[in-house]
Amino acid sequence: MPKKIKLGILGGGGDSLIGVLHRVAAHINDNYEIVGAVFSPELQESIDFAKEIDIPTNRIYKDFDTLIEEELKLSEDERIQVCSVQTPNFLHFPMAKKLLDNGFHVICEKPMTMNYAEAKELEAAHQKSGKVFALTHTYTGYPMVRQMREMIKAGALGRIHKVDARYYQGWINPIIHDKEKRSSVWRLDPTKAGISSCMGDIGVHAFNLLEYTTGLQVKSLLCDFNYLYEDNQMDVDGTVLVRMDAHVKGVIRSSQVATGEENGLAIAIYGEKGAFRWEQERPNFLYKMSDTEPTQIYKPGHAYNSALSLAGTKLPPGHPEGIFDSMANIYLGAAKAIRGEKYNDGEFPTMTDGVRGMNFIESTVASHKKGNVWITLD
Amino acid sequence: MPKKIKLGILGGGGDSLIGVLHRVAAHINDNYEIVGAVFSPELQESIDFAKEIDIPTNRIYKDFDTLIEEELKLSEDERIQVCSVQTPNFLHFPMAKKLLDNGFHVICEKPMTMNYAEAKELEAAHQKSGKVFALTHTYTGYPMVRQMREMIKAGALGRIHKVDARYYQGWINPIIHDKEKRSSVWRLDPTKAGISSCMGDIGVHAFNLLEYTTGLQVKSLLCDFNYLYEDNQMDVDGTVLVRMDAHVKGVIRSSQVATGEENGLAIAIYGEKGAFRWEQERPNFLYKMSDTEPTQIYKPGHAYNSALSLAGTKLPPGHPEGIFDSMANIYLGAAKAIRGEKYNDGEFPTMTDGVRGMNFIESTVASHKKGNVWITLD
Amino acid sequence: MPKKIKLGILGGGGDSLIGVLHRVAAHINDNYEIVGAVFSPELQESIDFAKEIDIPTNRIYKDFDTLIEEELKLSEDERIQVCSVQTPNFLHFPMAKKLLDNGFHVICEKPMTMNYAEAKELEAAHQKSGKVFALTHTYTGYPMVRQMREMIKAGALGRIHKVDARYYQGWINPIIHDKEKRSSVWRLDPTKAGISSCMGDIGVHAFNLLEYTTGLQVKSLLCDFNYLYEDNQMDVDGTVLVRMDAHVKGVIRSSQVATGEENGLAIAIYGEKGAFRWEQERPNFLYKMSDTEPTQIYKPGHAYNSALSLAGTKLPPGHPEGIFDSMANIYLGAAKAIRGEKYNDGEFPTMTDGVRGMNFIESTVASHKKGNVWITLD
Amino acid sequence: MPKKIKLGILGGGGDSLIGVLHRVAAHINDNYEIVGAVFSPELQESIDFAKEIDIPTNRIYKDFDTLIEEELKLSEDERIQVCSVQTPNFLHFPMAKKLLDNGFHVICEKPMTMNYAEAKELEAAHQKSGKVFALTHTYTGYPMVRQMREMIKAGALGRIHKVDARYYQGWINPIIHDKEKRSSVWRLDPTKAGISSCMGDIGVHAFNLLEYTTGLQVKSLLCDFNYLYEDNQMDVDGTVLVRMDAHVKGVIRSSQVATGEENGLAIAIYGEKGAFRWEQERPNFLYKMSDTEPTQIYKPGHAYNSALSLAGTKLPPGHPEGIFDSMANIYLGAAKAIRGEKYNDGEFPTMTDGVRGMNFIESTVASHKKGNVWITLD
Repeated sequence: MPKKIKLGILGGGGDSLIGVLHRVAAHINDNYEIVGAVFSPELQESIDFAKEIDIPTNRIYKDFDTLIEEELKLSEDERIQVCSVQTPNFLHFPMAKKLLDNGFHVICEKPMTMNYAEAKELEAAHQKSGKVFALTHTYTGYPMVRQMREMIKAGALGRIHKVDARYYQGWINPIIHDKEKRSSVWRLDPTKAGISSCMGDIGVHAFNLLEYTTGLQVKSLLCDFNYLYEDNQMDVDGTVLVRMDAHVKGVIRSSQVATGEENGLAIAIYGEKGAFRWEQERPNFLYKMSDTEPTQIYKPGHAYNSALSLAGTKLPPGHPEGIFDSMANIYLGAAKAIRGEKYNDGEFPTMTDGVRGMNFIESTVASHKKGNVWITLD
Repeated sequence: MPKKIKLGILGGGGDSLIGVLHRVAAHINDNYEIVGAVFSPELQESIDFAKEIDIPTNRIYKDFDTLIEEELKLSEDERIQVCSVQTPNFLHFPMAKKLLDNGFHVICEKPMTMNYAEAKELEAAHQKSGKVFALTHTYTGYPMVRQMREMIKAGALGRIHKVDARYYQGWINPIIHDKEKRSSVWRLDPTKAGISSCMGDIGVHAFNLLEYTTGLQVKSLLCDFNYLYEDNQMDVDGTVLVRMDAHVKGVIRSSQVATGEENGLAIAIYGEKGAFRWEQERPNFLYKMSDTEPTQIYKPGHAYNSALSLAGTKLPPGHPEGIFDSMANIYLGAAKAIRGEKYNDGEFPTMTDGVRGMNFIESTVASHKKGNVWITLD
Repeated sequence: MPKKIKLGILGGGGDSLIGVLHRVAAHINDNYEIVGAVFSPELQESIDFAKEIDIPTNRIYKDFDTLIEEELKLSEDERIQVCSVQTPNFLHFPMAKKLLDNGFHVICEKPMTMNYAEAKELEAAHQKSGKVFALTHTYTGYPMVRQMREMIKAGALGRIHKVDARYYQGWINPIIHDKEKRSSVWRLDPTKAGISSCMGDIGVHAFNLLEYTTGLQVKSLLCDFNYLYEDNQMDVDGTVLVRMDAHVKGVIRSSQVATGEENGLAIAIYGEKGAFRWEQERPNFLYKMSDTEPTQIYKPGHAYNSALSLAGTKLPPGHPEGIFDSMANIYLGAAKAIRGEKYNDGEFPTMTDGVRGMNFIESTVASHKKGNVWITLD
Repeated sequence: MPKKIKLGILGGGGDSLIGVLHRVAAHINDNYEIVGAVFSPELQESIDFAKEIDIPTNRIYKDFDTLIEEELKLSEDERIQVCSVQTPNFLHFPMAKKLLDNGFHVICEKPMTMNYAEAKELEAAHQKSGKVFALTHTYTGYPMVRQMREMIKAGALGRIHKVDARYYQGWINPIIHDKEKRSSVWRLDPTKAGISSCMGDIGVHAFNLLEYTTGLQVKSLLCDFNYLYEDNQMDVDGTVLVRMDAHVKGVIRSSQVATGEENGLAIAIYGEKGAFRWEQERPNFLYKMSDTEPTQIYKPGHAYNSALSLAGTKLPPGHPEGIFDSMANIYLGAAKAIRGEKYNDGEFPTMTDGVRGMNFIESTVASHKKGNVWITLD
């Protein structure tokens, strides 16, 4: 029988978006319970946040080292089993390493480390530890990405010969075009943000999807960055020529100045027998193409999907998984009302909606049964 | 400071899809904690299910009446505040009524009742109770549906003169075309399922969206059903002519035999100055049309949206809210690994992905800095 | 060996849009040559127009009756074989009838007549004549509409049970909402425009597509119009419940006040085994749906299409047939230049574009061959 | 008053697709009349083809040189003014040059020449001639491509900083993966087809669109080709890094092995203030994006478009220009019937359709007027 895994959280407090994402994800399949955390560098802030999200405060620690120290004093039964690392980038490596060294499993935000040397060091620590290490390349969790991978593995495309992935965003525009802002923001300071902005933050997702879906590895690459301004030191745009196996060539395109793009992650894989196209902003639609047959649109939850894909779908076909959030919004509105807080008209359907609905249904039946006549609703 | 609301669950155990949806939704904004339940008519099944989703079993009751009785013995501080009713349709009314009569708030699945008379009776009970009653017309929770409502209220379309909503599904096809199945399934038995199949189950959502978004009421209607077979007693398809205010006419189309359709809920609202189109299967794209200007595509999370819409968005623009589920799938894979259970390759990104990613990023920087030369990855 | 058919034109002069459409269509497959015409009620205007489009003026007649009289004097070899009727609606019937009665073939714009009685009378005349009568329900000429028809005929959908067609436009908005305009425009005057505006002009296309693609006939209907204003006498919006064969029900929706819609003709046909969806504004994409298989996208020109569909495609897959018009625009620009008329920069690609193109191609080869180095273009 | 331009055709006979495209385009705006031609290397074939398309045979010549010689003997009034060169690639240069040298205007298919040296030579000949030279980069004729250009010129995007264009096809797959075929087809023989297959044939269109729309020039490039097999000598896929002005970087992607792609030409232009996206297979939809405003969809024929764009649109908004071809298909069916040739049911709408249509329209009016009752059609 499953029992909830004891989860510790590092970072992700306050208004952190990544914090919300991790907490919700941890809840969704009833597998985790948060038992300890360092949400913020200030203890009081961490405690306040724990109260805000209504979890016990007794294992909210003042810092990461204390968390390790104190948790190790607890019995294995009580102790945090896995920590989710959501801190600023430069802390990923030291925290992940210390966690693994002390026998904790790790779920880690990307980038995993600040550079390749740290990555190799962490890899060694991981191997020694025998613990689970999961990196949150979130996009590999989409049911149709998984379907792509499984069908490619099963030979649906034949030998692959061309790959094309992109991740285009436009959010850095208001910063990069302003001399003041681009010289002061930490994101564009290599000493704070690492060696790469655009490629490190988003290009790497496109790279990851290529390797995840094809099962092939990028063997070599050639890259051209765009810094846009002479005084800017970090790439905000880049194109990478890649070679996977012999005669499997392709391109990774990445940009933070692709004006108007939001999370424009997309991938196309072309093989001898067929091809796939998929876009992150319409994640439920996977296009399988052929030179001789009509293009097919695969969607989640259908029996024709692979086991791996189906395991990632919780609802019947045609419900965008975002329906969870839609329902959550209604629960949120109800919560405000229950607490007697102010809420807006329209935040949740009320008794009136229910009464209207029954009035409607009965009227349709009456109209039909009486020979398609007009019925007046109350 | 918010404190989690004490939530009771009626129904929704086992493989119930609606159960998953409600539990996840209740978790998402950290507002509810499940403290009591009758998940199933069999006590042992309810208890087993409670263990499966790892919640305390001490307030799992043998039946609904016992739940009411026992909870009322608890102090107000401890007692269930709100019950979520997810039982079969015919139980919605008696449960909701008794809950309200005994001072509980109610979150209720639709259809609210079996008929209009019950609905009116429940409405009276609700008014007397002074409690919150939320009906889960889920689709009104979508940020872009809310945006539509707010913009219409603010006059963006001018006077409305034409409405068109549909909810098309095809799932009943394998049942309805099989004489054996259509005569035995409870769904098509009016004594068990109520007076209407297609209109009661899904057409009412289209009706609800029309009233929700326009702020107008359907005044009268004329309906034609299709039963498809002489021996079938329940509508599986229907079209409804509607009249809202004078000269505001339109149509509601609903079908369970629209082959290949999944959850094809869509709405179009036309007014003097503009129009809206929205589809449930691409919920993040709201089209605002005009006779003279380019069509505009509204998306969630942007500053140009209304407060009501923004309140329903938890992530920056371009992330389909389904990203929660994608991340949840990765947490699920990690949970399996942590518990030492069997999992498939590809269920979560590993250390290897992290190492490859850093190798990639450093290589792109090296390639660019050396003058766009080829770099071999390890 | 084919020889061009001698074509006469009635109406369609000056700025007539329908005139352009018919002339271009007549040219496209090299089958027709215009030998005579009454383009306009004024002889001089007709002659001027003939000169403008550069056709001989010797058989431009002062009126329709003269055309008939004079053409009958010519030998059969020289005589107009077919007349294309593009005059105002009320002239369709008398002209078509007289043409048939005098042994001419007829290509006729819709509406064919002003009312059903005339239609029956014309039908009798047609049967007696033994001549060809073609009505330009243009949309049946699309390759994917024809593909739909052929696949349905071949049983691809099994027994059909649900149909849904619409034609939504918004162009009448600026007229209908203006009291002055709506009371003065001929379009909304039943004595001039016939008994129906919206249904007669566009709803009938949706009706025609339903019958054309399914091979079934509408047996009965129930209709509700919207006139929007008390002082308006013509329908500008309407919904029609239809019944084709027993248990084949559906809906035709039609509007001229669907704000922002342009030529929103669309059709969906649902059957036991599958379904089709098609939209006029994206005419090259035909969606075939199923409850159990991925949706398929059929496109023109592929070997998998029917003979009837392929006969209507002149180019390889992936070229929207609008490519003709794109090429025509370039010929138009060149024509202006050749004649020494004023033209805008960008109206046709020039020598410079050709030189740049070759410079580009050679540079790409050089870059690749030299080991992927940068090459500067001239 | 316009007078048709005398057009000569070189090549384009028999089943040539490009021949159809040019002839139709020349007809569409009533500007050209074909007066002479060498359709094929065999005189009899040329004459037969002239008869097939029903043009006079007296100026069908045995070869190109004879055409020049004979036409020069005619008075300027009668003489061919412009020749359309549709011959195999290697003939473009010598024909275009001789035409210009002898005082003819030229409309020339691409590639303009076999290499850059020829291109420069032709450019010199052109300058000397003072004649019009139009290269048929067809895609620049689309109304929305022209709209893009004009809006960029007017500053709608601000300073451009990123460009991305692609042209993906899959048609060469069945050839390239077959050792026999790839070694024997002329397309992959550099001595016959020129120095580049993929980049020369289609990549250059992407390049041309970038320069056409932005008004900028590609200053330098770096390219990587894929030949896929060791024994293949011609590129079938390639990616090009480009630099336009300083800090304006981008990528051109081109492939003939992008399985399932048809004519996947697409372009994205990103600037400080906005961006454009456009795809050739949906040519009527131009997306204008912004970081802060809803994306806008521009469509042809609207008053908000530029003069250059509107000049390329012949019909009201919402009619894909492919409507010409749809109508042409109906004229084709009627032509078969008029000639007494065999035609399929469904090739053109008949009297029956007209009668049905009037029956439908009258029935809708009757149903509405009688209070929305059912009316049976005949």
